[in-house]
Amino acid sequence: MPRFIGLLQVDSTVGNLTGNASRIERAASIAKEHGAAMAVSTELAISGYPPRDLLLQPDFINMSFDRATSLSVEIPVLVGTPVPTEDSRSLPANGVVRAGSLIAQPNGENTNRIVAKKQLLPSYDVFDETRYFHPSNRSGICRAIGGMDLGVTICEDAWQIAGLTPSSYGQDPIQNLAEWGRQGVKLDATVNLSASPYHADKVGSRIKVCRTAALTLQHPFLLANQVGGNDDLLFDGCSLVAWPNGTVVVAPSWQEGVLLVDLDQPENCRWIGMAEEDALSIGNDTLKIISSDSDGHEESAELIEDITDAVITGLADYCRKSGIKSIVLGLSGGIDSAVAACVACAAVGAENVLGIAMPSRYSSQHSLDDARYTAEALGMQFKIESIDEMHSTLESKIESVLSNGSPVARENIQSRLRGIIVMAHANAEGRMAVATGNKSELAQGYCTLYGDMAGGYTPLGDLYKMQVYALAEVFNSRASKSGLQPPVNSSTMTKPPSAELAPNQKDEDSLPPYQTLDEILRLHIEHTMDADDIVQAGFTREVVLDVLARLERNEHKRWQMSPAPRVTSKAFGQGWRRPLASRHDWRD
Amino acid sequence: MPRFIGLLQVDSTVGNLTGNASRIERAASIAKEHGAAMAVSTELAISGYPPRDLLLQPDFINMSFDRATSLSVEIPVLVGTPVPTEDSRSLPANGVVRAGSLIAQPNGENTNRIVAKKQLLPSYDVFDETRYFHPSNRSGICRAIGGMDLGVTICEDAWQIAGLTPSSYGQDPIQNLAEWGRQGVKLDATVNLSASPYHADKVGSRIKVCRTAALTLQHPFLLANQVGGNDDLLFDGCSLVAWPNGTVVVAPSWQEGVLLVDLDQPENCRWIGMAEEDALSIGNDTLKIISSDSDGHEESAELIEDITDAVITGLADYCRKSGIKSIVLGLSGGIDSAVAACVACAAVGAENVLGIAMPSRYSSQHSLDDARYTAEALGMQFKIESIDEMHSTLESKIESVLSNGSPVARENIQSRLRGIIVMAHANAEGRMAVATGNKSELAQGYCTLYGDMAGGYTPLGDLYKMQVYALAEVFNSRASKSGLQPPVNSSTMTKPPSAELAPNQKDEDSLPPYQTLDEILRLHIEHTMDADDIVQAGFTREVVLDVLARLERNEHKRWQMSPAPRVTSKAFGQGWRRPLASRHDWRD
Repeated sequence: MPRFIGLLQVDSTVGNLTGNASRIERAASIAKEHGAAMAVSTELAISGYPPRDLLLQPDFINMSFDRATSLSVEIPVLVGTPVPTEDSRSLPANGVVRAGSLIAQPNGENTNRIVAKKQLLPSYDVFDETRYFHPSNRSGICRAIGGMDLGVTICEDAWQIAGLTPSSYGQDPIQNLAEWGRQGVKLDATVNLSASPYHADKVGSRIKVCRTAALTLQHPFLLANQVGGNDDLLFDGCSLVAWPNGTVVVAPSWQEGVLLVDLDQPENCRWIGMAEEDALSIGNDTLKIISSDSDGHEESAELIEDITDAVITGLADYCRKSGIKSIVLGLSGGIDSAVAACVACAAVGAENVLGIAMPSRYSSQHSLDDARYTAEALGMQFKIESIDEMHSTLESKIESVLSNGSPVARENIQSRLRGIIVMAHANAEGRMAVATGNKSELAQGYCTLYGDMAGGYTPLGDLYKMQVYALAEVFNSRASKSGLQPPVNSSTMTKPPSAELAPNQKDEDSLPPYQTLDEILRLHIEHTMDADDIVQAGFTREVVLDVLARLERNEHKRWQMSPAPRVTSKAFGQGWRRPLASRHDWRD
Repeated sequence: MPRFIGLLQVDSTVGNLTGNASRIERAASIAKEHGAAMAVSTELAISGYPPRDLLLQPDFINMSFDRATSLSVEIPVLVGTPVPTEDSRSLPANGVVRAGSLIAQPNGENTNRIVAKKQLLPSYDVFDETRYFHPSNRSGICRAIGGMDLGVTICEDAWQIAGLTPSSYGQDPIQNLAEWGRQGVKLDATVNLSASPYHADKVGSRIKVCRTAALTLQHPFLLANQVGGNDDLLFDGCSLVAWPNGTVVVAPSWQEGVLLVDLDQPENCRWIGMAEEDALSIGNDTLKIISSDSDGHEESAELIEDITDAVITGLADYCRKSGIKSIVLGLSGGIDSAVAACVACAAVGAENVLGIAMPSRYSSQHSLDDARYTAEALGMQFKIESIDEMHSTLESKIESVLSNGSPVARENIQSRLRGIIVMAHANAEGRMAVATGNKSELAQGYCTLYGDMAGGYTPLGDLYKMQVYALAEVFNSRASKSGLQPPVNSSTMTKPPSAELAPNQKDEDSLPPYQTLDEILRLHIEHTMDADDIVQAGFTREVVLDVLARLERNEHKRWQMSPAPRVTSKAFGQGWRRPLASRHDWRD
């Protein structure tokens, strides 16, 4: 008899218990329809991940738990939910309950449905779980569910054995289960409920985790992962199953649906997307079968396509979950605002996006032409509002301050006047303003607080400048494939980047070439290399010191940036927990 | 023979290892000079508290530890420092080393100096310690230090026994030490190295903690607490000692210095302030002896004086530690900007503060007069920059957008133009802009992003509106006592609050009276009461629902507010860990 399990890859919204329950129910019904004997949701699927300080409210824990245990499903489903504590002075658990088939009991009497509690609680990078949860010291097993006996683990529980946690925990759930197996406990498979955040090529790490677990346990290891964007945290889905021989099947990214797993025949696995209009469905829906001789890492072309979809998902889900229908942004004719416009149009529809060109006396005609070209190619709304008159009025008013002070004051005025105009449209028309900055310039403070940094979301805020160009190529090639005009013209692609805030200004007057800048930043931020290490890697000391000094000096700006979808392994404000503005450089 | 211990109440700067070491050395030398046989620093005094993600850098841990163990001191000192782990896959400890008297060994060979590691790691409210540290399971004892044997604990270690931690830990260091005492381990006293953050009247809780510990241990219990501001976290000092009979001696708040404790005679305790020019010295330097029949809570007059000093310390230390010498702010003639100006002048000196009145067509003459009055009474710089012409130019430019959209767009324009002018002065002259908003209006979104919210620090951001009035009274009375003009005149104190962004606008047109609003907010934020509870407490349901709805709807603004010194038990962005903008209301 074939053994089918449905992995429910859904896009939970934090705090939306009713909506999340309904999404899980719909996915479970698809799984049943296609022959699954039981199904597995993602980590904390009922509450959404991460619920953060909502978890400090006991009512929230209780309501989540009650909702999870009383789901209306026709096959048994393992559901991720906070589990109430029995003692008011201890923390709740991050757990898994069994929904369906048993008869739900009135409030609070469903403790017999609890099948697992998370053992390894990550508290590094974007994770804070020891703040909210009490760890379990016992591995989970669920017997006789859909005719199978399953090991049950939750996200981090599976990562230590693969050596992919920064520090070691006092226990290892996979080793526990393997030890029980050696002692005669027979399991058909082990499942893992995950909310594993995305960064570029994270899927390669997850494949390694699942292969290690399957090999250790000597049975299939199945991981159901959350999909969608919750502010700056993205979840790519890519639910997967690994067999002890190294074969892996990976579900699509940025799509809601069900990965139907045939435990006995990898080639029988199927992906069934959710068809509802509000279902997340970005990128392609290809199922990947990866043989044991491949590590499953993405090729560079595939990687940049995936990053593009990640950035679109971030903005699209932020808007959907916050009830935002339309967007406004400044369109300067430069590469950043052109690509931000592409992302915005992909996220909420070109007809809901307004771009405003706001030339000053320093703007060139090509800027205006290029901005108009992009707007027309995308089919978005476009208007021109010159800031020239206001700029002159304001300058003459405070000329004595400007002419005796730092020249940056004069430049910032233009950026802030543009911020006012963009925000006036946002406030008047109920649009969200989108900030167009990228990670390279934000890292260097090459941006203006309350000016071009104004806006509720920063779609390119975790992309280095050269990645912004790469995204432009992706949008152009996607447009061409659909028979549309490529939205970023060659003038925008090739002209030297300029903020156009002073006569003949070029970014390279203040910053190293972006190829160099990006690489120095990457080595420092993502590989935690210091100046000496980076110089060793082949960069000029003076340049490196300048870049790191600007990075340090402009820290305050980054903490005022609106959420940016996480693309790199260390986004600002995530992996880097906000230090104090007043800290000294301890290496002095 | 008298037994004197010096508690070193110093203002550490996060990351400034050299500066912190030197402050500890200076304080230890004062302690020695006044007869102390040994001294005790505060928690993580060498690194500053909280070091946050600096703790993820092994070099930082090692350098802190080396600096702590090699302090140049003439009496032995117990110093708080991160303690390196022996294993690269585990976390460091939050520990205490013994400096002085032993001969310091070369790098890394000072492990024999480690006398304690923190056992209870708080991870709630503003604390994140399980993220950074591994807990110890062994209580600390330091023998033969200054001729005494001491129990050694670190901050939270002492709080569980008083029932003042939100959840219980698996162990209790004070109980451990008491049990050893019953088994015959004789100690002269137990010390506690703390970095216990301030909120109003926190000292009452600390007195309870120290009395409980002293009673349990049956010997004196001494707590050395950090003092000063680190961004939004404030530390009030108030180092203290409690005896088993309930007598308590408390050091002054907002002052750096040494509490010299005579273990045998409370009335012999002394406070010696640090005399250096850069030493923190705000408020008065009175030592308090509290007898066992008082709980040590502050009277309301004392409380508001202390809150005033807290807010001044926050801004003053933010400026000092960040190298900011001068401040600019908008001076509207209203109560908030008047009090913010008082704070700024107290923090950096009136001669370094510039107030700008920026009237629009909606501003009244009394606003301008009151602003000028405050500036002159304080002796700060003052100028007037009308925004009228820019306002008209901008309005006429985008009139079609404004006249068809939400009226808030038109109001925000004025606030944002003022933001540009303030920031132009900040950027040109190297001043920090200070935002003048209070907690009540920030909670309700009655403020403008990139407008009046612009600025690097928000000194009144954790004060309810009625507290701002109370601070005005304090500043007036302090001025009168010094024979100066009271800075807030009666017109500013008594006129109905108005944003003056539309004709005849009053805050009460949009918000409940501030007495009502403040109380609803306090019950919800600090006492976590929901709408039903608050209505039960005597408020009109409709008003309560409106207030809570605005609070929810304007969450995004609060996460973009610059640091505000924490005064209440739940400041925005601290006790309230940032939830996702996109979360739903789970109670729907």
